[in-house]
Amino acid sequence: MEKEKNAMQRLNDLIKEKNSRVCAGLDPEYSNIPFVVEDSISTHPKLFGNELRLKVRDIRSFIKKDAADIYDETIYKYCKEYINAIKDVVPAIKVNSAFFERDGNEEIYWKVAEFAKENGLFVIGDVKRADSGSTSKAYAEAFLFAGSPFDAITINPYFGTDGVMPFLELAKKNGKGVFVLVKTSNKSSAEVQDLKLGDGRFVYEAVADLVEKWGEEVDPYNERNDYNMVGAEVGATYSEQIKKVVGRTDAFLLIPDYDDQGATANDVAAAFDKQGTGAIVNSSRGIMQAYKKECWKDKYSEETWAEASRAEAIRATNEINQAINKFYGLNIC
Amino acid sequence: MEKEKNAMQRLNDLIKEKNSRVCAGLDPEYSNIPFVVEDSISTHPKLFGNELRLKVRDIRSFIKKDAADIYDETIYKYCKEYINAIKDVVPAIKVNSAFFERDGNEEIYWKVAEFAKENGLFVIGDVKRADSGSTSKAYAEAFLFAGSPFDAITINPYFGTDGVMPFLELAKKNGKGVFVLVKTSNKSSAEVQDLKLGDGRFVYEAVADLVEKWGEEVDPYNERNDYNMVGAEVGATYSEQIKKVVGRTDAFLLIPDYDDQGATANDVAAAFDKQGTGAIVNSSRGIMQAYKKECWKDKYSEETWAEASRAEAIRATNEINQAINKFYGLNIC
Repeated sequence: MEKEKNAMQRLNDLIKEKNSRVCAGLDPEYSNIPFVVEDSISTHPKLFGNELRLKVRDIRSFIKKDAADIYDETIYKYCKEYINAIKDVVPAIKVNSAFFERDGNEEIYWKVAEFAKENGLFVIGDVKRADSGSTSKAYAEAFLFAGSPFDAITINPYFGTDGVMPFLELAKKNGKGVFVLVKTSNKSSAEVQDLKLGDGRFVYEAVADLVEKWGEEVDPYNERNDYNMVGAEVGATYSEQIKKVVGRTDAFLLIPDYDDQGATANDVAAAFDKQGTGAIVNSSRGIMQAYKKECWKDKYSEETWAEASRAEAIRATNEINQAINKFYGLNIC
Repeated sequence: MEKEKNAMQRLNDLIKEKNSRVCAGLDPEYSNIPFVVEDSISTHPKLFGNELRLKVRDIRSFIKKDAADIYDETIYKYCKEYINAIKDVVPAIKVNSAFFERDGNEEIYWKVAEFAKENGLFVIGDVKRADSGSTSKAYAEAFLFAGSPFDAITINPYFGTDGVMPFLELAKKNGKGVFVLVKTSNKSSAEVQDLKLGDGRFVYEAVADLVEKWGEEVDPYNERNDYNMVGAEVGATYSEQIKKVVGRTDAFLLIPDYDDQGATANDVAAAFDKQGTGAIVNSSRGIMQAYKKECWKDKYSEETWAEASRAEAIRATNEINQAINKFYGLNIC
């Protein structure tokens, strides 16, 4: 009997099947939805003035239910169109919980994840949860139960082993994966993560070492063939740190913020192993708002935003494949 | 015109008014609700068997809505009874989001927070969120909008300044507070937080220094009288580290897990300033499950669990007041 594959092995299969190492990020902001002017705001101008758009939790308490429903349906419609646009060209999607929590429409978050799952994508819940003991267990049960549409979630390592283990154990049991934040892509990530330890390591390197240890403990090499189900997240903006992390752990890497904060395909090539796999590169704004990009804005418009997203997902896929070919002398088409 | 007080000043006023430095924690677990056997499970034995209890998000998708509603109502009823039991003896409540997220009843989380707010408590949303840039902003807007029932939330410092600032800025604008995790109460918190830096500090000390800097930047001393709105969280289990943090920052302290993992009132006395204020000590399991405690179990039962919680909140209040008196030679009654 063939052993059931873990989450990262399934992701790697999808990467090879679609020949794409790109994860499409989904951070829906109502004010950035291209068709929103026609669809909702103009038909409900009193309910969705600019000032109110960001206060939907507030709005819910005093407007009639209709308006909140229209808002939710607009977000859901946008997410579905995005997923339909990219589903056959990329293996994975990363959906950020923050924007749904802000709007008080957690139900839509789950519906979006389910829609992505139904459409064959590997679904990463970008929730960055962390706590310890029974509270970590509760967060793990929130996202990683057996029937959950999420294949993996992101978590924060600040609590150490007894914060992280409840996530890893439930993930292992239910065939899910976890990406542990190691070095985040934002500018001031150095303030905590690049603190230099007495033993010469940086904090993020110590965290990478913990990730390696956790992965080996929960999903050991002798029980599988290649990647364990404990991944690491390292920002595309930090190419030197990507190399350092690769040197310390075999964890599958999630590389966010490619093409967003100035990171390029060459910056992220080192995240992959010699087979050109073992990592996935996320682009959120780059794909979501592709129709505004310099290279696409003559060809696409607000009306054809979804086609632009698809074109950009294909372009990013090719660019990263080429960068890996160059880096490792491979010949990925 | 008197300056409007910030969140920590309001909390401190409530502490003095109620003469209690205890925060009642609320981490509702369906299986731990004393009256649940009579109320829901026995009347819906097929829907709420033991095995299913922890899979409510799952359950929601295939059982009829009634059962999920009964579950939600039971949780809400329990939370309301808990709040009613402790509302006039403690100044604050800390409500943990994890247990509501696990059950897919985020709406109840908000209803509980609103009920606590209506009952005069300072409401801490224990959400431990963290991200950076626009995502942090979205999380901040989720919990710290002007009309939110939450007076403060907990956040994770791993991202550094541009992860934390969106929370602090919105909190400042809307009269809210933020508690930054510095040294967490769990056993393995040392793995990341007690890494020794090349400059001699531990990671948690470096984070305490950041908290001091952030507080001074967003809510400077010359614009207020006493506490700024940026607090720090240090676990009751680490009395030595509490002293270290107090030595590095004037931040208002949230001290969780008193009376839970073996921490005592004497361990936490050093968290307070010479006026016996500037900190609040949280007890979750200790107050919630007081009827099971050695010192209360002869007097109270499952039926009188709420009275036991109230009695324990008063006992903890007195114990902490006495410990502070002893520590500082004060005379708090």
